[in-house]
Amino acid sequence: SNVLAGKYQGKVYFVNPKGGEIIGRHVFKSVTEISDPVDLAVVTIPANKVLALIPELKAKKIKNVLLITSGFAEVGAEGKRMEEELVKHAREAGIIILGPNTMGISNPHISLYCTGTHVRPKPGDTMLVTQSGNLGTQLLAFAEKEGIGIRAFAGSGNEAMITIEDAMEGFEVDQLTKTVVLYIESIKNGRRFFEAAKRVGKKKPIIALKGGRTEAGAQAAASHTGAMASNVKVFKAVCRQAGIILVDHPMDLLDLSAAFSSLPLPKGKRVGIVTLGGGWGVVACDLCMENSLEVPQLSETVINRINNLLPGFWNHANPVDLVGEMNTEIHMTILEELIQWEGCDAVIHMGIIGRRIMIQSVMESTVALDKNYDNNFVEGALAYLDNFEKQFVERTVTLMEKYEKPIAGVYLLNDNKTRTITEVEGCKYRGVNFITPERTVKALAQMYQYAQWLKG
Amino acid sequence: SNVLAGKYQGKVYFVNPKGGEIIGRHVFKSVTEISDPVDLAVVTIPANKVLALIPELKAKKIKNVLLITSGFAEVGAEGKRMEEELVKHAREAGIIILGPNTMGISNPHISLYCTGTHVRPKPGDTMLVTQSGNLGTQLLAFAEKEGIGIRAFAGSGNEAMITIEDAMEGFEVDQLTKTVVLYIESIKNGRRFFEAAKRVGKKKPIIALKGGRTEAGAQAAASHTGAMASNVKVFKAVCRQAGIILVDHPMDLLDLSAAFSSLPLPKGKRVGIVTLGGGWGVVACDLCMENSLEVPQLSETVINRINNLLPGFWNHANPVDLVGEMNTEIHMTILEELIQWEGCDAVIHMGIIGRRIMIQSVMESTVALDKNYDNNFVEGALAYLDNFEKQFVERTVTLMEKYEKPIAGVYLLNDNKTRTITEVEGCKYRGVNFITPERTVKALAQMYQYAQWLKG
Repeated sequence: SNVLAGKYQGKVYFVNPKGGEIIGRHVFKSVTEISDPVDLAVVTIPANKVLALIPELKAKKIKNVLLITSGFAEVGAEGKRMEEELVKHAREAGIIILGPNTMGISNPHISLYCTGTHVRPKPGDTMLVTQSGNLGTQLLAFAEKEGIGIRAFAGSGNEAMITIEDAMEGFEVDQLTKTVVLYIESIKNGRRFFEAAKRVGKKKPIIALKGGRTEAGAQAAASHTGAMASNVKVFKAVCRQAGIILVDHPMDLLDLSAAFSSLPLPKGKRVGIVTLGGGWGVVACDLCMENSLEVPQLSETVINRINNLLPGFWNHANPVDLVGEMNTEIHMTILEELIQWEGCDAVIHMGIIGRRIMIQSVMESTVALDKNYDNNFVEGALAYLDNFEKQFVERTVTLMEKYEKPIAGVYLLNDNKTRTITEVEGCKYRGVNFITPERTVKALAQMYQYAQWLKG
Repeated sequence: SNVLAGKYQGKVYFVNPKGGEIIGRHVFKSVTEISDPVDLAVVTIPANKVLALIPELKAKKIKNVLLITSGFAEVGAEGKRMEEELVKHAREAGIIILGPNTMGISNPHISLYCTGTHVRPKPGDTMLVTQSGNLGTQLLAFAEKEGIGIRAFAGSGNEAMITIEDAMEGFEVDQLTKTVVLYIESIKNGRRFFEAAKRVGKKKPIIALKGGRTEAGAQAAASHTGAMASNVKVFKAVCRQAGIILVDHPMDLLDLSAAFSSLPLPKGKRVGIVTLGGGWGVVACDLCMENSLEVPQLSETVINRINNLLPGFWNHANPVDLVGEMNTEIHMTILEELIQWEGCDAVIHMGIIGRRIMIQSVMESTVALDKNYDNNFVEGALAYLDNFEKQFVERTVTLMEKYEKPIAGVYLLNDNKTRTITEVEGCKYRGVNFITPERTVKALAQMYQYAQWLKG
């Protein structure tokens, strides 16, 4: 039902030996009854009946099977035997299986959402492959929520035939893929994986989370055992060499894919910070330093330029504290002063976006107390602020194009309108804003490290 | 306007030399014109006019002043001189000043919300004092959003008279305070602070974020310079000794205050995990190990008991993978099996709460495709799921009371109904659920370390 409700652009046929009708659609008793050619069979019948399906698929010349069914190698010896036999017969029949035991695939570019969990992220350039279906679909759900576009997703399941190593070669040639995101528990052919990674990584960043880093974690992942799981230090070292960006938490995968896909790479590690609050600036500054970035002193030229914009008691330092200045045009101008400054490789802005939410509550208090104002006043002001945020993001994206330096933000507060990614029509970059300073700093720090690795 | 719109339970008078009316209320030309006694003067007049106010306040016998006005010590030498003179005169007049340069105070227990940012968290037991007003009010806004109750808040500003050391003594005797949360840039009297911390910390956990941990960060915090800012290693060591729980990120302050205020302390470090998805379980397991917690093997008794509940192919290990089991009663029973098991000091559940959001999208797809279902079907099912989540949280809280072990959760997905804290009427504990596994694991790990420190 996810495929149909997702408005897939191709044709979909139902097959069930019982035939009949489901939601007003004809149900074929066998794939061979379908007259049109079929590109992909999505199989969900019980494990012990899958083998018998192979001759039918072969007769219908179906080459590709998405085998969602579980109950194979992951449940023990008997399942493993069944899986091996299935692979043998599929190979003989010229059939390729993705799975078994997968949560499915999706390709938002053709509106194909074929996953158990009904999530429909928008089309984009982040490729997501996960060796855990539930983790994958959860990430897709967050991607949908945060406006992060997805090139395609696959839960690789038991990897009976198609492995994550195969996928690596796909990423290399796929023009639509700009960023690769992986959740890995084990790799069957480590050498092949890392050689592919080294090639792909030079063209597009590979961001990975390793499940089973600890002994207990590896035991928990035991149903997918592989050689790599046993030595995490080796895995980490090889990843570093291959330029793979390793993260510690699932959500980091999305944060980094958002940043890498949407921002130019920083050429150095010097960060300019502009903040609507002093304490928030101190925190960001500490985080930059702790993540191997630098927060350089402002040059005299920059100080003089900002002197013309802020009251005399401004802090004359980086982070630039906007001292509660309300004039939004000044925020933008100071941001531009920082990004164009040659002493600065990236800019973080804090609290400029999301102020809308705070101002709304001030205005609601005013309306509640003062009869001279009404709800139209609040709505008018909110429309103005929404528009300002839109313009501000557009301006940051334009500045990124002009100076080829990344600009990323931190929301003052978040609500249901708040998204990590804001697209700006006709621009190759996008607005990136996170809810906390640590997420913004981490993203820039990882981008800087990747840029360093590229330089070799 | 925040005080009035926040429906403060006491009386509020406006004072302005011009007199007249504001929003239909009489404006007194001077505080001496007010006939009733006044507990607190909230001062926002320009810095250079504050000194002249002192005799008036003295005449009216106002002992307490909240001085929001900025432009004192934080802006340079002349401001510093003004601040010193003000303090001298205030002291002579028997007046105590909080501030200057503060974002204000709030006490939700008497509906007093006197902060520049209009945030109104609910009454609770977390005391929040921050040496940065904007960071403080931002944290209050997130607390409001996440359902985290606040005992009281103060932005301590320049600490011209009342310092964070004074506040420490207040926390010690205040019966309503269960958890203390601090944002610290510098401490004027380190010895006094840490001696108080050691005493308070034995009774209630103190959670602190240090701004200016790095050289650049300390420079950014320079307007608040103090001896402590210069040596972070010493600061950290002394905190550890005094049992102060140090965090790295602003949001950790709230996460930990939620956990410490709402859960019993774990007696050991062994964590039982129950998860609706295998990959998510692997991730949680790694995070537990990396945060000095343990994920013990299940005992045979526990395995046998779960054998009666899950299909034969369940993973027979901790984390317990619920293998997509839909029967929610089984989730609850397995959770209880883990929490009552003597080999386990705390339980994390993952993906049981927040499934509502995923199931909603499945149902919406169904309704979109199949005319046999309508929106009433979706609404009915959602009401059922909402009710299940409510019951599940109630059950976890009841189990915590019964076994005196903490249970914390991870949302499968989040929406605007999702909150960190869920109150359960008549219970001393509360439901605690975070959006990511790392936040849940971090909270339990810090609670375990604090429990260890308490044991000495």
